[in-house]
Amino acid sequence: MKITRTPKSRIDSVDFSNLTFGQNFADHMFVCQYKNGAWQEGEIMPYGKVNLSYSLHALHYGQAAFEGMKAYRKADGKVSVFRPLDNFRRLNISGERLLMPQIPEDIFMEGLMALLKLDEEWVPKSADHSLYIRPFIFSSSEFIAARPSEDYTFVILTSPVGPYYPGSVKVKIEDKFTRATSGGIGFTKAAGNYGGAFYPTHKAIEEGFKQVIWTDHKEHKYIEESGTMNIMVRIGDSLLTPPLSDRILAGITRDSILKLCRDWNLDVQERLISVDELVSAARDGSLKEAFGMGTAAVVSTIDGIGYKNEIFTVPTPKDGFAMKIKKGLTEIRTGLAEDKFSWMHNI
Amino acid sequence: MKITRTPKSRIDSVDFSNLTFGQNFADHMFVCQYKNGAWQEGEIMPYGKVNLSYSLHALHYGQAAFEGMKAYRKADGKVSVFRPLDNFRRLNISGERLLMPQIPEDIFMEGLMALLKLDEEWVPKSADHSLYIRPFIFSSSEFIAARPSEDYTFVILTSPVGPYYPGSVKVKIEDKFTRATSGGIGFTKAAGNYGGAFYPTHKAIEEGFKQVIWTDHKEHKYIEESGTMNIMVRIGDSLLTPPLSDRILAGITRDSILKLCRDWNLDVQERLISVDELVSAARDGSLKEAFGMGTAAVVSTIDGIGYKNEIFTVPTPKDGFAMKIKKGLTEIRTGLAEDKFSWMHNI
Repeated sequence: MKITRTPKSRIDSVDFSNLTFGQNFADHMFVCQYKNGAWQEGEIMPYGKVNLSYSLHALHYGQAAFEGMKAYRKADGKVSVFRPLDNFRRLNISGERLLMPQIPEDIFMEGLMALLKLDEEWVPKSADHSLYIRPFIFSSSEFIAARPSEDYTFVILTSPVGPYYPGSVKVKIEDKFTRATSGGIGFTKAAGNYGGAFYPTHKAIEEGFKQVIWTDHKEHKYIEESGTMNIMVRIGDSLLTPPLSDRILAGITRDSILKLCRDWNLDVQERLISVDELVSAARDGSLKEAFGMGTAAVVSTIDGIGYKNEIFTVPTPKDGFAMKIKKGLTEIRTGLAEDKFSWMHNI
Repeated sequence: MKITRTPKSRIDSVDFSNLTFGQNFADHMFVCQYKNGAWQEGEIMPYGKVNLSYSLHALHYGQAAFEGMKAYRKADGKVSVFRPLDNFRRLNISGERLLMPQIPEDIFMEGLMALLKLDEEWVPKSADHSLYIRPFIFSSSEFIAARPSEDYTFVILTSPVGPYYPGSVKVKIEDKFTRATSGGIGFTKAAGNYGGAFYPTHKAIEEGFKQVIWTDHKEHKYIEESGTMNIMVRIGDSLLTPPLSDRILAGITRDSILKLCRDWNLDVQERLISVDELVSAARDGSLKEAFGMGTAAVVSTIDGIGYKNEIFTVPTPKDGFAMKIKKGLTEIRTGLAEDKFSWMHNI
């Protein structure tokens, strides 16, 4: 692997006590090109401008998918990545559906590890901070015809981040716009899924909400995701989350929380949750908690749910399951609790 | 408008008798940036590499949409563009749904006209050839957080092209994968719609077809589009095409063909066409013709339709409606027939 170091680190120009999510990039990036039907040798180089053309395929036809994961500074000062092989596999699942070439595991993992070792100082030391890692692949041929690209580029960027969503959020159950359909690409982290979600979210924000709860494509009758996160609700003493399908992202945080809750012998169920059931539970007080689950925010508590001109308050207890889960995950990530699932990958 | 001319034209390096669609770019391009909530002054510059970063928003979140239209060399040697204002309006419809800023008409039209005047020699002189025009807009902030971009870039590229689909194509009625959903972005020319369609199309190609006929998101019971084109079928003496919805692109070629057919007093109907109706008509011989309608190919005749292990042959008569329509549109575009709908926009 060719490594070109930056002549001068930019780390002193970044205020680590005041990080905006995804705005600051570490000194280096990993880049690997797919050309003539084969992956070329990967390369680490300084983060910065590159030469591209406006005929870049991905800008026109959206063959592009990404991942998000995090490296943590453990209590002993060492750096560890949370479940990187799961993100690697999911990126290839997205890639397959978007007809992009599979990324070999050694290119992904060796590139990631070399990059993190080189930029290890960029992993923040403060609590609730981490180094967000963004592996992504996009179509990079330079032609404008509606057919698959021939060339692809796989890149890993990293960015030091603080907490993502401060506080609890009020969300709206979406009954007009749709994020995903059966037979579509909703289960992938395709770029196009996000671009299509901004307008409905903007409309919800105009109505005083922070995000939407997406519902199914046929009748808007079942809840599916919350914004860009998986959703979990607690009704009575049961934790419920919608089952995976080709419309729902197989969240790695979602999977980790399911495993953690089952290990704790909580009653946790993957099953359909109708809007009617959720609204009834909110109305009669049996809805005890609701939260989003995702890499960026880990757990994002919901304190209000809007549906057809009504707004229901949702409790956000300090000693509730959401906080217990967040604490449990954080302790594993920072090395304060045993990593019994072997989730942490030391660099 | 700032205009920087190329020091040396590349036109002599292009073989105009052997053009691959979308591979050759004319000497110049038009670029206009949206920054700090406002469109900046547009600029014409030589087509070529530009400095971008891999954190470019559109590569991650797919806020990106394009248009396709064509400039024709008329019989008198002058150059004329087909319905550019309709493409302009549709690009803004796509942009609205993707939460991108509206492009002012003067930026679009003045940029387009100045660019075409400068590169007029790139409009091919041969029959069935044209200058394909690709206006597009994409999100160009450089951060990686799943929220709308702040900056956008509007670009016009042009590319001399020959005929798009030579001959007739065999298509498969898709009953598993889905292109669009109600409440989604299927009616836009969002980049993400195309990236999501490549894999199902690839599967169809592996089965011996050239394209898929997309069906509805709920039951795969009604036909919607054919590949990247609108679809029209002739059953008996009626020309049928599915009605517009938020799942179907409001094709400008589709609209032109509807107007032309109505002007010719043909029986043309926009109505739901079930797969059952289409298959029955193919089986009993009342399906007389079928074709795709789009800017790139204009009319693309279908000679076979596959559905669940059966393949039905579709006639492609030389004196059929498809050929009559193609000839009619071509004569308007090349100035051989009266432009009674005022579709042609001279440069």
